[in-house]
Amino acid sequence: MYLTDEKVAVMGAAGAIGSNLAQTLLSSGTASRVAMYDPFAPGLEGAAEEVYHCGFPNADVTWTTDVAEALEGASYVISSGGAPRKEGMTREDLRRDNAEIAKQLGLDIKHYCPNCKFVIIIFNPADITGLTTLVHSGLEPGRVTTLAALDSTRLQTRLAQHFDILQSKVTGCRTYGGHGEQMAVFIGGIQIDGTPLTDILDGETVNGVGMSADEWTGVQEHVRGGGARIIDLRGRSSFQSPAQQSVFMLRGVLVGESYDWPCGAYLNAEGFNNIMMAMPVALSASGVSWSMPEGTEDDINALRESYAHLTALRDQTIDDGILPPLSDWRDSNVHLG
Amino acid sequence: MYLTDEKVAVMGAAGAIGSNLAQTLLSSGTASRVAMYDPFAPGLEGAAEEVYHCGFPNADVTWTTDVAEALEGASYVISSGGAPRKEGMTREDLRRDNAEIAKQLGLDIKHYCPNCKFVIIIFNPADITGLTTLVHSGLEPGRVTTLAALDSTRLQTRLAQHFDILQSKVTGCRTYGGHGEQMAVFIGGIQIDGTPLTDILDGETVNGVGMSADEWTGVQEHVRGGGARIIDLRGRSSFQSPAQQSVFMLRGVLVGESYDWPCGAYLNAEGFNNIMMAMPVALSASGVSWSMPEGTEDDINALRESYAHLTALRDQTIDDGILPPLSDWRDSNVHLG
Repeated sequence: MYLTDEKVAVMGAAGAIGSNLAQTLLSSGTASRVAMYDPFAPGLEGAAEEVYHCGFPNADVTWTTDVAEALEGASYVISSGGAPRKEGMTREDLRRDNAEIAKQLGLDIKHYCPNCKFVIIIFNPADITGLTTLVHSGLEPGRVTTLAALDSTRLQTRLAQHFDILQSKVTGCRTYGGHGEQMAVFIGGIQIDGTPLTDILDGETVNGVGMSADEWTGVQEHVRGGGARIIDLRGRSSFQSPAQQSVFMLRGVLVGESYDWPCGAYLNAEGFNNIMMAMPVALSASGVSWSMPEGTEDDINALRESYAHLTALRDQTIDDGILPPLSDWRDSNVHLG
Repeated sequence: MYLTDEKVAVMGAAGAIGSNLAQTLLSSGTASRVAMYDPFAPGLEGAAEEVYHCGFPNADVTWTTDVAEALEGASYVISSGGAPRKEGMTREDLRRDNAEIAKQLGLDIKHYCPNCKFVIIIFNPADITGLTTLVHSGLEPGRVTTLAALDSTRLQTRLAQHFDILQSKVTGCRTYGGHGEQMAVFIGGIQIDGTPLTDILDGETVNGVGMSADEWTGVQEHVRGGGARIIDLRGRSSFQSPAQQSVFMLRGVLVGESYDWPCGAYLNAEGFNNIMMAMPVALSASGVSWSMPEGTEDDINALRESYAHLTALRDQTIDDGILPPLSDWRDSNVHLG
């Protein structure tokens, strides 16, 4: 009835993302055993009660403000437990505070569930919080990932709107690198109902609609501002799509279902060193494994720029004392040599 | 991949319930074609964008502030499009305003989708808004229902907490009649891990735990205040559980899946006349059909009291001019003779 009866710890479960996540894990038949954690007891209890009132068959849902109780025995950990982005903030404004939270989460994982199979980090800036969690957790790099799909689904959405076709008919939309304004929006691989977008920029049309280079630049800008736009429209940051995509990611790990979007992966090869960023990945029972993306020369240059930007954020986090110096990472995590 | 590709109109889709509903219809594999309607354009667009960013495969999701566009061609209509309950309000405080909204919805259904197969009304007081929608829609009584499960799942939840067992092991929890403070909380049929609750009140224990008559009264009071408690804990009224249960109800209609909770049904027999209230039901492709509940004498008396209370609310709604006099119902709806 559910893909797994193993324990899934949802950190930040009183929040909009976390409470949606608890419901969606059950609603989609993904996980029956959900431990909801949050430091904010009334909101957490309220969120848990809502899940109880859904009446999910054979569900085993618990809530606790004790992080040990939440994590002990957890096979899977999904955390949205950082401070959310407010109007006018960039994801990176959150970096320092949320990196501290990520460090503590990593240490807690090392202490309470060192054998957990998979950790998904949602809170921003996810590249840095995911990396920080990984370093302090002691887990193998393939066991920690970050949500990185939303920029790609926003790209798909925008192109579908431009060409007035069903979203599913826009394929190959991928953004890689950082999940900040410096993301690399790839054009290589995008097809609109089977026609390469590069051909459309050269004059082809779909549904009688073309796209100019300026319009494509506009689409990229739109995607970069996609998260901020949700805040403008709804008065709060995205919560349904992060929760839903995290469940899709967990399903990818649980059944090797083809998860078709980029995920954050720890990179230490191909000129990308000691960093976590969005890449083409395969999700399976052994976790996340990444590969180099294919793209135009511009695409790959944008990826390297995004990497450079992330490296600076990482180094700031080292300077803040939240991540150890690179030479000491192995002391925190034997898998990061 | 989805149980239906027919159009489901979600009314009130910018709201917390409606936006969750749109996601859950897709996430649970229930419906692929979702038309999101709300008069509040920015919030609606934001909610729709979130659904797009989920990247549901083969989804066909649209949003509109035009009620005609939302309803035309809809096979199913689910409406949470009333004003929500605020702290300190009872469901019935909302009655007059939301009954006006329900009347307009009924007229819109009659005009734009008179052949729709099933309508689920969520907004409070659902007994009155559901009845008002039915009368003005011209639909057969079996085609209109109301969400009525949450009192029952709250009862199940509270008993599971009392006996410290899994929620699914508490069976037969049912509240009937009105979904207001005058609901009838039935004891007949409840079993705690196989032991009738009536036996437990007579001295049996489960897990070494018993229950006194006073404790049972306390449980009933807790259930009656269940919705208000969510508002206290979360600072907002329930939204996840109404959305989720509505999806379960639609699934019951789509595949004749056993939907195991009470639903609102139009009654005109057994001494319950011209009223909509929560009863034991069967959901199927032909809609909702109700039967008399079994219970103790106290249970049935409580049900008749709840009916009397609803009758008064209905008559107030007639006096307000929102429902026609009983003798004229047939003019609005030929099926209500």
